Amino acid sequence: MSLAIHDALLPDGRTASVYVEDDRITEVGRRRDADVTIDARGKALLPGLVNTHTHAAMALLRGYADDMALHDWLTEKIWPVEGRLTPDAIYWGTKLACLEMIKTGTTCFNDMYFHMDRAAQAVHEMGLRAFLSEGFIDLLDAKRGETLLKQNEAILDKIAAIESKRVVPAVGPHAIYTVSTESLRALKDLADARGYLYHIHVSETKQEVEDAKDDHGKTPVQLLESLGVLGPNVVAAHCVWLDDAEVRTFAQRGVKVAHCPVSNMKLAVNRAMPLEVMRAAGLTVSLGTDGPASNNSLDMFQTMKTAALLHKFATGEPTAAAARTVFDLATIGGARALGLPAGEIAVGTLADLILLDLHRPELTPSHDLISNAVYAATGDCVDTVICDGRVLMEHRKVPGEAEILKRAAKVAGDLVGGP
Amino acid sequence: MSLAIHDALLPDGRTASVYVEDDRITEVGRRRDADVTIDARGKALLPGLVNTHTHAAMALLRGYADDMALHDWLTEKIWPVEGRLTPDAIYWGTKLACLEMIKTGTTCFNDMYFHMDRAAQAVHEMGLRAFLSEGFIDLLDAKRGETLLKQNEAILDKIAAIESKRVVPAVGPHAIYTVSTESLRALKDLADARGYLYHIHVSETKQEVEDAKDDHGKTPVQLLESLGVLGPNVVAAHCVWLDDAEVRTFAQRGVKVAHCPVSNMKLAVNRAMPLEVMRAAGLTVSLGTDGPASNNSLDMFQTMKTAALLHKFATGEPTAAAARTVFDLATIGGARALGLPAGEIAVGTLADLILLDLHRPELTPSHDLISNAVYAATGDCVDTVICDGRVLMEHRKVPGEAEILKRAAKVAGDLVGGP
Repeated sequence: MSLAIHDALLPDGRTASVYVEDDRITEVGRRRDADVTIDARGKALLPGLVNTHTHAAMALLRGYADDMALHDWLTEKIWPVEGRLTPDAIYWGTKLACLEMIKTGTTCFNDMYFHMDRAAQAVHEMGLRAFLSEGFIDLLDAKRGETLLKQNEAILDKIAAIESKRVVPAVGPHAIYTVSTESLRALKDLADARGYLYHIHVSETKQEVEDAKDDHGKTPVQLLESLGVLGPNVVAAHCVWLDDAEVRTFAQRGVKVAHCPVSNMKLAVNRAMPLEVMRAAGLTVSLGTDGPASNNSLDMFQTMKTAALLHKFATGEPTAAAARTVFDLATIGGARALGLPAGEIAVGTLADLILLDLHRPELTPSHDLISNAVYAATGDCVDTVICDGRVLMEHRKVPGEAEILKRAAKVAGDLVGGP
Repeated sequence: MSLAIHDALLPDGRTASVYVEDDRITEVGRRRDADVTIDARGKALLPGLVNTHTHAAMALLRGYADDMALHDWLTEKIWPVEGRLTPDAIYWGTKLACLEMIKTGTTCFNDMYFHMDRAAQAVHEMGLRAFLSEGFIDLLDAKRGETLLKQNEAILDKIAAIESKRVVPAVGPHAIYTVSTESLRALKDLADARGYLYHIHVSETKQEVEDAKDDHGKTPVQLLESLGVLGPNVVAAHCVWLDDAEVRTFAQRGVKVAHCPVSNMKLAVNRAMPLEVMRAAGLTVSLGTDGPASNNSLDMFQTMKTAALLHKFATGEPTAAAARTVFDLATIGGARALGLPAGEIAVGTLADLILLDLHRPELTPSHDLISNAVYAATGDCVDTVICDGRVLMEHRKVPGEAEILKRAAKVAGDLVGGP
């Protein structure tokens, strides 16, 4: 299978054509004929955006409960509903989320939730690339953790059995305050043995850090370091309350960071994560939306802009988190966080690509493509989405959209208190 | 002329039909026949969004210069280009901005820029409602101010001569640091004599407040109060650095506030305006995008979400700036700020209305319409826009779009250094 994208504006300002064989870009330059040809005149070709932290099926709970204190939100609203989640709900919730991601230019995401074998089926069918971790919570009970680990492995095996190179299992210890130290370590052994990512929430709130000090005499990062679980396959979400020494620890261990600015602001974590300190330390930083119940959108264009705004506001420096920096977090940063040869338009990289329609008022004039992508665009500017060399959306049409909206709405209604 | 909107979901959760005669809603309830009928099944009817502070034609400079310190941005980039602005550039820049506003659900805006008689012509043709002030800057030279005032009046007369009740002149003293006290007062006399709004930037940065104390021994608000210019026709943009006493002064005088969260974050003003203090004092607070060179979008949906995120983040309270509060700022708050009987779906109010298409992934499921509008929607969810009882967009089609994009792009290219 070959795919040719003719005469697109590239991020470096050139107009060029891109040739794709199977899943890879094999040429950037001249026009060539191919099995599938896309006329990209009047469009910009960008790397697909990479969302490195979400809980996709929580799209079912979008707008169900907002503007609440975290504890009330979880105990009164989210957890009771999550107790009723069925595999079927996860399937349709993930389909809904994939649809939204495709329509807003995300080609790859790093997900953590429940019944993830059903999520895997949904992702497989939708054509996106994803790393799927079954959320692991033993409530600090190591005995329970042993049982859960077996169940968790069985689900990861089911994901692996799909045999799609786009749909990759990962381990997902929720956080140090919900997972016993024994399980945190056992999951790391599993991840290392199988070559999986280790996806975990770290230091999202000040409370989490203070509780860890009380309970363990260590911060979350110090605890994870003492357990020996930090390494290049760890994707740590949030990392809001890291201090400079912890950033250095992450840098030494090669830990990847998933920064979630919208969720952090909505849930009022009350600090901006130390982006400049992390970049100066050479850390790989990427962007995530977090789940659609705490965002409430999966649009990574919005997450890029909010990242830029948050760091300018928090530092008092309008030069902080410049457009190009933020664009890199959402593309090459995401790809590096997940270990993918992607996130740029270059020969040999995965053909995970999007075309922006430049004939739109918010992208006019076009003084600077990257500035427009970060500050002016929304996901709706995306005309075409290609993942793994295959066209998932062209002219904003995604096959099966109406059915997904209908089924997901029904499942969501039943979930929150249908009949 | 009558217009009927059949079977729309309303913000209060009812499904109902709305009947419009000329420019007003005359009935909310049953279906009626009309000259123009819109089938709104599967859509939500909301008040059109009101943008109470922008510089619309700066759309021409969108993305031209970002991520710079304010002083460098102005002196190196913006002012040199603004010196080359022509009436024709303003006309096409305003048309571009109006197009973007229509496509993102704004029906009314409060604008301040230059050559505003040409902006008025553009707004008149595009069908939106706007208050247009010719930006007044005498650089603290009262003598120069006298000459400028005559020129300013002549432009306002030209705007009034269009004789459109949608296109309303206003006075626009830029700020206390660019306008002499004599001119600040003279413009107030003009506004009061003619019944115009008095649109001014107030306490956007800490520097502005400190400089005012050095130069006048008063804060900007204290200075304006001492000049006797504060009153119910004053729309004060930004108001980031107001203290509690100044908020009380504004409340006593009936001053209206235009809050611009995206611009404040992008330009790193380093503080969140005191929203809760203002609301507790009974102030009328509304939302603005600020100009597209410092945002870089005119999408008020994004401004609503950013307002909610900013105040949660700044206060550390996830309950701050709840969805309904923010929605009210962008609708009824904006209408009150500008003195319009609008901003809600009620008999007797102006028919400035929008329809959201609910069949979209980001608006599915629909647990809470207002939450979805604030946290999940972008302007692209707007299907239909009605202003003053007239349909400006249906199914996202705006007449003349291609021509506007082409002409505005050309004008913008010439402006920043074309041949």
